Amino acid sequence: MKKRIGILTGGGDVPGLNSVIKSVVYRGSEIGCEVIGIRRGWEGLTHLDLNDAASRSRYILPLSRESTRTIDRTGGTFLHSSRTNPTKMKKLPPVLAGQTFQSRETTKNGETSTVYDVTPAVLRNIEALELDYIVAIGGDDTLSYAAELDRHGAKVIAVPKTMDNDVRNTEYCIGFSTAITRAMDAIERQRTTVGSHERIGIFRVFGRDAGYTALYTAFVTSLRCCIPEYKVNLNHLIEILVDDKHKNPSNYSLVILSEGAEWEGYTVKEYGPADAFGHRKKMSVAEDLSTEITAASGAETVVSDLTYDLRSGSPDFIDRMVAITFAGMAMDAIAAGKSGLMTAIREGCYTMAPIPDPKLGPRKVDIATMYDTDRYRPKYDGKLGLPIFLIRS
Amino acid sequence: MKKRIGILTGGGDVPGLNSVIKSVVYRGSEIGCEVIGIRRGWEGLTHLDLNDAASRSRYILPLSRESTRTIDRTGGTFLHSSRTNPTKMKKLPPVLAGQTFQSRETTKNGETSTVYDVTPAVLRNIEALELDYIVAIGGDDTLSYAAELDRHGAKVIAVPKTMDNDVRNTEYCIGFSTAITRAMDAIERQRTTVGSHERIGIFRVFGRDAGYTALYTAFVTSLRCCIPEYKVNLNHLIEILVDDKHKNPSNYSLVILSEGAEWEGYTVKEYGPADAFGHRKKMSVAEDLSTEITAASGAETVVSDLTYDLRSGSPDFIDRMVAITFAGMAMDAIAAGKSGLMTAIREGCYTMAPIPDPKLGPRKVDIATMYDTDRYRPKYDGKLGLPIFLIRS
Amino acid sequence: MKKRIGILTGGGDVPGLNSVIKSVVYRGSEIGCEVIGIRRGWEGLTHLDLNDAASRSRYILPLSRESTRTIDRTGGTFLHSSRTNPTKMKKLPPVLAGQTFQSRETTKNGETSTVYDVTPAVLRNIEALELDYIVAIGGDDTLSYAAELDRHGAKVIAVPKTMDNDVRNTEYCIGFSTAITRAMDAIERQRTTVGSHERIGIFRVFGRDAGYTALYTAFVTSLRCCIPEYKVNLNHLIEILVDDKHKNPSNYSLVILSEGAEWEGYTVKEYGPADAFGHRKKMSVAEDLSTEITAASGAETVVSDLTYDLRSGSPDFIDRMVAITFAGMAMDAIAAGKSGLMTAIREGCYTMAPIPDPKLGPRKVDIATMYDTDRYRPKYDGKLGLPIFLIRS
Amino acid sequence: MKKRIGILTGGGDVPGLNSVIKSVVYRGSEIGCEVIGIRRGWEGLTHLDLNDAASRSRYILPLSRESTRTIDRTGGTFLHSSRTNPTKMKKLPPVLAGQTFQSRETTKNGETSTVYDVTPAVLRNIEALELDYIVAIGGDDTLSYAAELDRHGAKVIAVPKTMDNDVRNTEYCIGFSTAITRAMDAIERQRTTVGSHERIGIFRVFGRDAGYTALYTAFVTSLRCCIPEYKVNLNHLIEILVDDKHKNPSNYSLVILSEGAEWEGYTVKEYGPADAFGHRKKMSVAEDLSTEITAASGAETVVSDLTYDLRSGSPDFIDRMVAITFAGMAMDAIAAGKSGLMTAIREGCYTMAPIPDPKLGPRKVDIATMYDTDRYRPKYDGKLGLPIFLIRS
Repeated sequence: MKKRIGILTGGGDVPGLNSVIKSVVYRGSEIGCEVIGIRRGWEGLTHLDLNDAASRSRYILPLSRESTRTIDRTGGTFLHSSRTNPTKMKKLPPVLAGQTFQSRETTKNGETSTVYDVTPAVLRNIEALELDYIVAIGGDDTLSYAAELDRHGAKVIAVPKTMDNDVRNTEYCIGFSTAITRAMDAIERQRTTVGSHERIGIFRVFGRDAGYTALYTAFVTSLRCCIPEYKVNLNHLIEILVDDKHKNPSNYSLVILSEGAEWEGYTVKEYGPADAFGHRKKMSVAEDLSTEITAASGAETVVSDLTYDLRSGSPDFIDRMVAITFAGMAMDAIAAGKSGLMTAIREGCYTMAPIPDPKLGPRKVDIATMYDTDRYRPKYDGKLGLPIFLIRS
Repeated sequence: MKKRIGILTGGGDVPGLNSVIKSVVYRGSEIGCEVIGIRRGWEGLTHLDLNDAASRSRYILPLSRESTRTIDRTGGTFLHSSRTNPTKMKKLPPVLAGQTFQSRETTKNGETSTVYDVTPAVLRNIEALELDYIVAIGGDDTLSYAAELDRHGAKVIAVPKTMDNDVRNTEYCIGFSTAITRAMDAIERQRTTVGSHERIGIFRVFGRDAGYTALYTAFVTSLRCCIPEYKVNLNHLIEILVDDKHKNPSNYSLVILSEGAEWEGYTVKEYGPADAFGHRKKMSVAEDLSTEITAASGAETVVSDLTYDLRSGSPDFIDRMVAITFAGMAMDAIAAGKSGLMTAIREGCYTMAPIPDPKLGPRKVDIATMYDTDRYRPKYDGKLGLPIFLIRS
Repeated sequence: MKKRIGILTGGGDVPGLNSVIKSVVYRGSEIGCEVIGIRRGWEGLTHLDLNDAASRSRYILPLSRESTRTIDRTGGTFLHSSRTNPTKMKKLPPVLAGQTFQSRETTKNGETSTVYDVTPAVLRNIEALELDYIVAIGGDDTLSYAAELDRHGAKVIAVPKTMDNDVRNTEYCIGFSTAITRAMDAIERQRTTVGSHERIGIFRVFGRDAGYTALYTAFVTSLRCCIPEYKVNLNHLIEILVDDKHKNPSNYSLVILSEGAEWEGYTVKEYGPADAFGHRKKMSVAEDLSTEITAASGAETVVSDLTYDLRSGSPDFIDRMVAITFAGMAMDAIAAGKSGLMTAIREGCYTMAPIPDPKLGPRKVDIATMYDTDRYRPKYDGKLGLPIFLIRS
Repeated sequence: MKKRIGILTGGGDVPGLNSVIKSVVYRGSEIGCEVIGIRRGWEGLTHLDLNDAASRSRYILPLSRESTRTIDRTGGTFLHSSRTNPTKMKKLPPVLAGQTFQSRETTKNGETSTVYDVTPAVLRNIEALELDYIVAIGGDDTLSYAAELDRHGAKVIAVPKTMDNDVRNTEYCIGFSTAITRAMDAIERQRTTVGSHERIGIFRVFGRDAGYTALYTAFVTSLRCCIPEYKVNLNHLIEILVDDKHKNPSNYSLVILSEGAEWEGYTVKEYGPADAFGHRKKMSVAEDLSTEITAASGAETVVSDLTYDLRSGSPDFIDRMVAITFAGMAMDAIAAGKSGLMTAIREGCYTMAPIPDPKLGPRKVDIATMYDTDRYRPKYDGKLGLPIFLIRS
């Protein structure tokens, strides 16, 4: 098969993206496919001006074994990323200025704005670049546009990534294992300083809507955790943490919070001046919990934010293995002429799944089977029959 | 349920054993089970002299939340290990001296010896210790005796571990992921020195019978590998490595060998004086390959043995998650009154499987689906439908 | 010599403290000295109630080779720490309630309060515990009380530690090298995500008064930095960072800020409600810089706080070597009957130095020789003749 | 100053070489110096054929900020290395074939051979390349030729590197700290598996003539060690190790051996067939010690070779700091017109030292002050007044 494949990465980066890119290029070179890097996610297809050499070099990068040989040794994405969604452009890119596109009103956080759908331009670029296929690597938002393109007849294969592991239709997304590895390492290192000072240590990790990162880190470190899917009782949480500290011969205790975790009656505090849209900065729930613990118990606390570090560095074994396997499956799917599908793991096995419907939102932790609502920790029983990552999608 | 559970670790240690032990103890404390550590694998039940305080302290260690609180932060096994198989005792332990046990002749490496089966003594000790259940963590040999005990009516649950990942009836054994993580890290570090000196680097990893460790390390590092399941052609291998080196802008190439890898016509070289049994030391296949490459191509080579480091240190995310889940499943099985089973992963999902029959030997790599016999590297296509670890058990 | 030595750790913990403790105990056991751990810094000598078993166990811990055998493998301090300064007690400890001590008024952050000097009680405890010597490990504040005790005739040896490396009279404090190692590792990992998203990355590290941590991290990573000792020009800084980003083929740039860094005209912003003392929380300078950069240049930014991680985990080679050597020197000094001195490195060599006068405050970076005030980066020339850590004390 | 500087790396690589190269290039770009990479050590100046484009590209690489921007993030040497010594060429390089050079007989390991001194060709190449200066980074052998060139009037600055830290006239060589860091990390990881199996663990590290690597690793890990500078008594060593094991609650003990360590009466065993020169392979002293321990005490042993890993990966903080400072000093020396000197640390301070005379051989460990000949471990007392690395050069 002689095909020309465009590949892009969208949304927040994670370790393992470069493994997918390299594997697609290497496999392509074996089966006679050209692979073209589209830079900066979907922006590469909305902002590209084919008549402008600077724009072409900004957005298009033909890939070879030579140029991708070493990229899998580092995290991040060699192709850069963006959050551009071609159906929700607030402003037309310069190259499309003056052209007419479908528009609609959307409301987000109380603001209503007009957004344009520049899909016709994207399709023209795909045609002009003579791309037979697009491999899109991303999270919910990036992949939802892959599904949109599929509906317009462009051939796309989606590859799921996100350190939150909350994309539907797959039990695993590239980046999740490395994120837990990083969080686990940081907590094991920082235990010593929390213990030296006999504090209650509060670790905050990403996860506004879904608590997988906090929950799995707690699972492997035997710690308490609070996740967005369940509102804990603040007094009970403080009691548990104070009791943990008291029972620990080193006189400290630890809890992991998702950034979206809340307790009953909690309202996010805001601070600082309003920005241009009238928004003020949100106080971290970890800072709030710290204040509450000290007020209620007198215990000294310390907050540690584990944020960008969790998406940094080189991928661990699992993320490399899954990334490379997903890349192989994507190429197998292309060779078989399939499209509109996402590489996935379901019931513990590799499969090609439908690209999830973004309207369903992120997958959430199943509290009944995964979270002990009395002890505020993961559940460790009843795992028989579950797929390896303990999740059903 | 009020039960008294003995727990032991046998065979070579791997990171993650302590996570199983701690999880069993913690869960036990929640559901009213006492957990007794049996030290030094099955030796703890063959050599134990209950009338001797020193022997009791050498072999029996009651476990508590306090005494196991921090053990999961380090690798190895808190309970020590041994390779004792009570059905194959070459010598009766002192405490059993003078007693009569069934014996038989066995032949191994050309030596014939008499071995005793001291199972009756083991059963007496289990009874004397009032153990309702035994949780045995180990590889093929350790687990085969768990099955033997089950046939004698003792209640046992087996938990598979081995960095070689070659235990049958499960797609995953505790220790495998950490082993690949360590190998991958070592290779990524050592690339720089192989490259500086423009050598062909040969990494040797454990694996006498099965090549999983070499194969999966090669999979995630995009390297060549040779495994026991397939005899490569030496000239072709050297051609490939010299060609890889030539094409690499940094002018080096790398190959990973299982210790049991061979090429067509290969015979293991021996060296040094014969020991008491007439055995001489075996030359490493990596040293032999090094000599052959230099002789055939003039290229400078370097051999790096990645051995004990692969089973050292603290467990990675996957080994912790699987170890803790296996421990939970073992306790669930005990609570349900099941026995004679092994915690396992099959078709990508957690399950209780039969303890494998040792006569079948270790599981081998399926060359047809996993190894490219032309390019001497892992296969990256055709993974659709496979369980996450790309293995069927 | 038969001596009884008390040992304590005060102030913020760093990796390496346990190496000092273990080395003192081991050496003590060789030369016939008993070593008594005093727990929770000077609090162990102010709050100790010798008639109360619970208090004795809370504050006094006799140390042995057995109990300290493995402590050097982890960071933190086995003895816990506190910031108690016996000359500045805001409240008398329960055991001293009703007793009379010298008091004085102090003013800090606009608050005036009465503080007591409970040194007579400390001296009584030292006598009651029959301590011939005290080894005090800490930063400026902890060590200043060691000097005070010396003036009262108690025999003390001080050992300097602080990740800020700003204790006077020594060129090196335990914890500094590990802090830079951690910061360097974090930045090398996080580069990838800053690059993927083409941002200007702002790393904030501890250092309110002295910029050594930021400066040395910048030195070894070739990055820009801002330190408390020099107010940069905001516009020029932004110009440099935007220009760095533009010239970087991966289109990102990085800067390291001490928490106490400021620019010309900068005033710390405060936010949130006032606490009981009328104080509001201070906005991080990194957040402020982030806002300014985006406002001035439109560039996307990301702030990463490298805080507790820098004082966490196990010590690196240098911190172990220096900690062990300082412990040996302390014991040599005790054997020689010296006291009132601090183990130190001066002009690149190990020496016993005077304990620094706290009135002088922390040592500051010498801008003229260490900081390029035009390029906002470390100076790399003119190092000939300097001691190995490029600092004179 | 407008100068043209050639830079090369010779001998075994270590982490930190690329930091020197990058720093020289960056500093050069600031002060108007061109920097030319000479590839493959002195071979770049002996084998270079300026009339042959392939040879020029093989040996000459002009360096820029762009081409060296990221090289300091990895170990090894970007310029490749070789052990070529232009005064000891066994064979004339092709480009010099047929030309006449001074020759002499040398005898090494019993073989006598004729070697040529091709210095006139090297000087011609330096002139043809219009190099005003050469910066040579290497160990004893590489640097000795730098001194030779200096004697012939070429301007050279030497930078010492070696993980053995045995170059004279400096207390520190680039690569030593990283080597100890790697060894320390490996031993801390592997402790767990030695302990699980209750073995005596023998770690072997590089160091044929000087024992610094073994000694300093032992210093920071509190272990026994044997080094080339002192022949231990085998029985006493075994007694100590068996006693250590017995006293350790985890029932294991550890010892670190330099590869050149020996005991009284030891003779290196050889094995395998003789090669073309009649040489047979040498048995590792660690394997021999393992055999002796088991024979004498029955204890199980395990040998772990820590070899190439110690020179691999990215440099640690100290090696980066020293490498960058040495680079700065080299450039300062060039700007000041100095030559024939080596960047060094003496008495704890940075200095320019004479290039050491190779006839003196490597610097050796001072047994009297550094090694406890009774307990076979480092000495921890009497360090007052010593430079930071505890060595005088």
